[in-house]
Amino acid sequence: LTLKRVSVDDFQEEARRTLPKAVYDYYCSGADEQRTLADNVEAFNRWYLIPRVLRDVTAVDLSVTVLGQRLSMPVCVAATAMQRMAHADGETATARACKAAGTAMMLSSWATSTIEEVKSAAGGEAPLWLQLYIYKDRELTLSLVRRAEEAGYSAVFVTVDTPYLGKRLADVRNRFKLPPHLSMSNFSTDSLAFSEGNYGNDSGLAVYVAKAIDPSICWDDIGWLRRNTKLPVIVKGVLNGEDAVLALKHGVSGILVSNHGARQLDGVPATLDVLEEVVQAVQGRCEVFLDGGVRRGTDVLKALSLGAAAVMVGRPVLWGLACQVRVRLLTARCRSVSEVSRSLVRRKDFSSRM
Amino acid sequence: LTLKRVSVDDFQEEARRTLPKAVYDYYCSGADEQRTLADNVEAFNRWYLIPRVLRDVTAVDLSVTVLGQRLSMPVCVAATAMQRMAHADGETATARACKAAGTAMMLSSWATSTIEEVKSAAGGEAPLWLQLYIYKDRELTLSLVRRAEEAGYSAVFVTVDTPYLGKRLADVRNRFKLPPHLSMSNFSTDSLAFSEGNYGNDSGLAVYVAKAIDPSICWDDIGWLRRNTKLPVIVKGVLNGEDAVLALKHGVSGILVSNHGARQLDGVPATLDVLEEVVQAVQGRCEVFLDGGVRRGTDVLKALSLGAAAVMVGRPVLWGLACQVRVRLLTARCRSVSEVSRSLVRRKDFSSRM
Amino acid sequence: LTLKRVSVDDFQEEARRTLPKAVYDYYCSGADEQRTLADNVEAFNRWYLIPRVLRDVTAVDLSVTVLGQRLSMPVCVAATAMQRMAHADGETATARACKAAGTAMMLSSWATSTIEEVKSAAGGEAPLWLQLYIYKDRELTLSLVRRAEEAGYSAVFVTVDTPYLGKRLADVRNRFKLPPHLSMSNFSTDSLAFSEGNYGNDSGLAVYVAKAIDPSICWDDIGWLRRNTKLPVIVKGVLNGEDAVLALKHGVSGILVSNHGARQLDGVPATLDVLEEVVQAVQGRCEVFLDGGVRRGTDVLKALSLGAAAVMVGRPVLWGLACQVRVRLLTARCRSVSEVSRSLVRRKDFSSRM
Amino acid sequence: LTLKRVSVDDFQEEARRTLPKAVYDYYCSGADEQRTLADNVEAFNRWYLIPRVLRDVTAVDLSVTVLGQRLSMPVCVAATAMQRMAHADGETATARACKAAGTAMMLSSWATSTIEEVKSAAGGEAPLWLQLYIYKDRELTLSLVRRAEEAGYSAVFVTVDTPYLGKRLADVRNRFKLPPHLSMSNFSTDSLAFSEGNYGNDSGLAVYVAKAIDPSICWDDIGWLRRNTKLPVIVKGVLNGEDAVLALKHGVSGILVSNHGARQLDGVPATLDVLEEVVQAVQGRCEVFLDGGVRRGTDVLKALSLGAAAVMVGRPVLWGLACQVRVRLLTARCRSVSEVSRSLVRRKDFSSRM
Ligand SMILES: Cc1cc2nc3c(=O)[nH]c(=O)nc-3n(C[C@H](O)[C@H](O)[C@H](O)COP(=O)(O)O)c2cc1C
Ligand SMILES: Cc1cc2nc3c(=O)[nH]c(=O)nc-3n(C[C@H](O)[C@H](O)[C@H](O)COP(=O)(O)O)c2cc1C
Ligand SMILES: Cc1cc2nc3c(=O)[nH]c(=O)nc-3n(C[C@H](O)[C@H](O)[C@H](O)COP(=O)(O)O)c2cc1C
Ligand SMILES: Cc1cc2nc3c(=O)[nH]c(=O)nc-3n(C[C@H](O)[C@H](O)[C@H](O)COP(=O)(O)O)c2cc1C
Repeated sequence: LTLKRVSVDDFQEEARRTLPKAVYDYYCSGADEQRTLADNVEAFNRWYLIPRVLRDVTAVDLSVTVLGQRLSMPVCVAATAMQRMAHADGETATARACKAAGTAMMLSSWATSTIEEVKSAAGGEAPLWLQLYIYKDRELTLSLVRRAEEAGYSAVFVTVDTPYLGKRLADVRNRFKLPPHLSMSNFSTDSLAFSEGNYGNDSGLAVYVAKAIDPSICWDDIGWLRRNTKLPVIVKGVLNGEDAVLALKHGVSGILVSNHGARQLDGVPATLDVLEEVVQAVQGRCEVFLDGGVRRGTDVLKALSLGAAAVMVGRPVLWGLACQVRVRLLTARCRSVSEVSRSLVRRKDFSSRM
Repeated sequence: LTLKRVSVDDFQEEARRTLPKAVYDYYCSGADEQRTLADNVEAFNRWYLIPRVLRDVTAVDLSVTVLGQRLSMPVCVAATAMQRMAHADGETATARACKAAGTAMMLSSWATSTIEEVKSAAGGEAPLWLQLYIYKDRELTLSLVRRAEEAGYSAVFVTVDTPYLGKRLADVRNRFKLPPHLSMSNFSTDSLAFSEGNYGNDSGLAVYVAKAIDPSICWDDIGWLRRNTKLPVIVKGVLNGEDAVLALKHGVSGILVSNHGARQLDGVPATLDVLEEVVQAVQGRCEVFLDGGVRRGTDVLKALSLGAAAVMVGRPVLWGLACQVRVRLLTARCRSVSEVSRSLVRRKDFSSRM
Repeated sequence: LTLKRVSVDDFQEEARRTLPKAVYDYYCSGADEQRTLADNVEAFNRWYLIPRVLRDVTAVDLSVTVLGQRLSMPVCVAATAMQRMAHADGETATARACKAAGTAMMLSSWATSTIEEVKSAAGGEAPLWLQLYIYKDRELTLSLVRRAEEAGYSAVFVTVDTPYLGKRLADVRNRFKLPPHLSMSNFSTDSLAFSEGNYGNDSGLAVYVAKAIDPSICWDDIGWLRRNTKLPVIVKGVLNGEDAVLALKHGVSGILVSNHGARQLDGVPATLDVLEEVVQAVQGRCEVFLDGGVRRGTDVLKALSLGAAAVMVGRPVLWGLACQVRVRLLTARCRSVSEVSRSLVRRKDFSSRM
Repeated sequence: LTLKRVSVDDFQEEARRTLPKAVYDYYCSGADEQRTLADNVEAFNRWYLIPRVLRDVTAVDLSVTVLGQRLSMPVCVAATAMQRMAHADGETATARACKAAGTAMMLSSWATSTIEEVKSAAGGEAPLWLQLYIYKDRELTLSLVRRAEEAGYSAVFVTVDTPYLGKRLADVRNRFKLPPHLSMSNFSTDSLAFSEGNYGNDSGLAVYVAKAIDPSICWDDIGWLRRNTKLPVIVKGVLNGEDAVLALKHGVSGILVSNHGARQLDGVPATLDVLEEVVQAVQGRCEVFLDGGVRRGTDVLKALSLGAAAVMVGRPVLWGLACQVRVRLLTARCRSVSEVSRSLVRRKDFSSRM
């Protein structure tokens, strides 16, 4: 008895039933007690949509320009690692879906497909971005960037919230590691490709990060990265106005308000709750993006109303969400993204509940 | 073991048990996650009643004048489509009940009884109003208005919140359509009467709306409608002060604060939460009505205290609610509707709950 | 396996298990959806106690003077009707318990024991008060007062919140009436003693009230009552400052902030939530009491901190609560009731909860 | 099927399954309805952590100086009575764990190990503090202090919130007393060592306290204690600014903001909720500590951000918590405790939840 899948929840439920537990756990987990994980989603419900009536909504155009490139809609795909655990084609399937949908894909440093494989799946049209972890081995790090440049990727999103891996309880319990037939295929040694036999009693990925990723990175490293690439650099993982201002000072081309899908430190704010603070700090000097908890077309509307140039989705499958977006934007009487304004949303304000 | 039905919930529970699932689902559903659906009801609980004591409440008169006509009480029946799915007599049974109760009935464009059938069931006393959807075919649209005029209906409530149909998940899952023996009986072709054989993989009604209803309507069409009828025109579906002011500018005789029973766009405010804003924008220049979530006599009191001229009920059966109203108004020491004032209610204000 | 009873909840649970359902329902019900019923109790949890340390609490004295009489503690027994449904001795057992505890008892007009029986059970020490309903038959009403005066009762609490009986759903469902061997024993006819055979399809008590109780009473009737008795008159059922000021103007000796145990109109404020407003309106010109939801010693402390001279308990059995009070007052470092002050409590103020 | 234990909850769950019910109940209970018990933990969730990015977190140092002594981290062990009910080695095992972790242990007056036994288990490095109850017998009280001085304990935490024992319902139901093979081993008579055969129908410990502990202690007794020991005196159990100021006036060396693990008076604030008030009242004139509800490394961070010099944990086993702290401090980008500042936390502020 399979239900018709009509919402992202239906897709998640089906994933839960069909994926191996350790894989599903890895995909869905947040850090510790997962309060921020729930809050990322719940934050959208703290805002009302205030629809207007009697506007002609016959012609609708959802396209936006992001980092200088046109997308069919203001929803892109966030980097999520190791997609071949979910589907044999993994990141290349995602690339094909993004191409079909006309939107951008961010590829994880920890992909189970190579930078080049993904490029050839994506073809020439839809933008590809590289998500970059800064390794202790800086030459290795730059080699990823260079491969992306050569393959025609158009931006680097450098993740700044992962000096150590967050404590995801299920991954510790499951002693999470990749299934033997897969590896982080952009790397050549077992150690870098996350393919060692034994990571002990902990989350294998936490062990991997402690060994390979550089916990010493600081703002100067953003300058270092910019000097070493001609691609625009965007910082992924900013959660407050002060860091946004520092990012601007260090010449970033964009800021992705993100708490890493609530996977790093539990107890941090939901991304939507800090979006306006970051937007106000930035004052239009660079593009601001948001990810975390986007599940419905109305979520997209709300983030855009609060100043995001576009949003990214991590966990949800792209096509599930994208098809819903169209419907919702129409229903809210927005003919184009440029018509989305702050007045479309209103903060709920009732302290009183019996 | 049937319980004595003492509240609207009891009636709903009985409906749930006896109606075919797809019919019950259609009747009760709200859009998407149904948060606004729950909030419509919950909003009433965010207000206290502040009862006064030691006032003589021997004689009680609940009648009000609405759109120039006297009603026995400030509670009318909102338009709900396709009532013959619930009862063989459908809209004509509702009309007889309204006649008995001495209150007004709004007939849906999508009724399974004709405008004329309902008129003859209602007799001459209780007011009848036509709820109007504006079709792409404007002549067809006007023909409904003309039939209502001829049959003696006294107002047109034009629904402005449905350029596309809201996503009601159960209807999508059920591929909702009318049972074969029924049709929207004010229309003559299968296509307009919602009697086609196959609406594909979606909610049949959503397909119907996309095909027949005009998504381009705008404020000028209110002027067009007013020029084409001598009946007062009321807009149904306003949720904020700006649109209320626009409605006044376009000469409406009334505004129905409504979110279509939370069936169009999830995440919009509960109607009670925006009532005061609309009332203040209107400043007495036309009558303001409310529907959405009214389930108890105390709900009526609260809406009236906040400025509604009358309220409408959609889902609840009229008689269930109406008999409760009397009791509640008495208990709250209101001798007549004119005694209901803003001081009767007070916003709850505790942010603190352990 | 009977648990040791250590809180009022334990006593209630035991009552639920042993009483006939219709009796238990009558005792515990609130009006309609019982939101105010829950809120009466919950309101106490919206206040913190701020305990002070290092005060000598060896000697503790809980006594208070109320309406000119000394009580062993600031907790009295509110009028609850028809107590013989719970115990063969009914009101006379309560009177004996109050005598033992050294506190006052308020006897309901609707007692299943006579005014005189209760007096002889109470003996001469602990104060007795008459709760008075004003009947359409005013001579009958005054005869109750005169019997109380003669029996040595020391105050009249006139209930002002019951022109009609609140809708208690369970009572309607149960068609509540007294068991055949009992009657309201202060009255001699079946009709007045609530002993008719058949009250139809409704709560029998609602029918009784509609027939016998005067819905026309107003502030002038307080004057009438005062002129007809030498006993102090207290109004029972005030919920806001305006009515409190009116009560003072009509010469009452006290005000009982009460919502009738949430049995009359659902949706009114919890009594604790309006206590401070009434206390401030009264400005010390008469004593203010509170009932509704008092279940623990700390509840008593909170009400006293907010200005109540004493509190009353309805549903809880008196002895269950009273023994707890001693412990709590000690733990909170109050040596006597005169040391209880506003600073002992603080309103919770967190709107934020994940 | 034992799960890997990855959080304090896992340890608690395992304790629940293995300890005798009466022992587990004694350990976990709070007073009365246990609302403050839950609130102690929940309070930490009312604050966000605001992480900063791109700071070098390679070298991390968690050590702090507390009461003049260096600890490896700002987390110490609060006094909890009768630890041999949980483990045969009881307090001596805890002392060894504290020694290994490099942090301080507070020994309860009611330990099932002697002051001297614990000292020899702890060795010379990690600080030991004596938790002191003031007995009616003041010589006995001072003898405990003198033994601690001689054994090399370095502070006295005097508990000021227990003139009477709080009502812990489970202990009353269980008629809690020590198992026959154990006693409070710092005392020599059965009566003082809590080893009598029969404590009647109540919590044995409540009976013990009423008999032995002095309910008359007041601020002057702090002076008396200070005159009788050369050790610094810290008051344990302060919950507001006024008492904190009084404590300073009476010459304490520190203040432990504590509600005794919510075991004394239900309805008092969570300790985290009053920490800032106490810190502000003290204005740096003595060290402020906090216990109550600390369960995660992020809780430690939050308390430190709000001004605590260190926190104590009662119920959680020390090692379970301590290993988590390291991870969390790192993830939040704090290189040393001196970098923890008020800006790391932000009060949540949404009153609105659907
Ligand atoms: C399974 C999974 C793997 C992820 N892998 C990466 C990654 O390799 N690099 C990265 O910067 N972010 C990674 N993220 C974070 C996402 O880029 C994104 O911030 C987050 O998923 C957005 O939240 P959402 O899942 O609620 O949409 C991952 C998230 C998930 C759920
Ligand atoms: C089953 C159903 C059918 C409805 N059909 C119509 C309709 O045909 N036209 C319209 O304007 N509103 C329609 N509505 C909305 C109602 O007129 C009204 O706004 C809403 O039901 C009020 O909320 P309530 O059901 O909570 O009382 C419908 C609502 C329901 C529940
Ligand atoms: C079973 C029951 C019977 C009651 N009968 C009367 C009554 O006869 N007259 C009256 O004034 N109040 C009556 N009350 C209200 C009480 O006097 C009192 O206001 C209320 O019970 C206090 O709330 P509590 O039950 O939460 O303590 C009754 C309440 C209950 C629960
Ligand atoms: C089982 C138990 C026994 C305790 N015994 C004592 C004690 O003997 N003396 C004392 O001052 N506090 C005692 N406390 C309180 C603790 O010192 C501390 O304030 C509290 O446990 C901190 O809260 P937490 O358990 O949530 O960490 C006890 C607490 C518990 C849970």
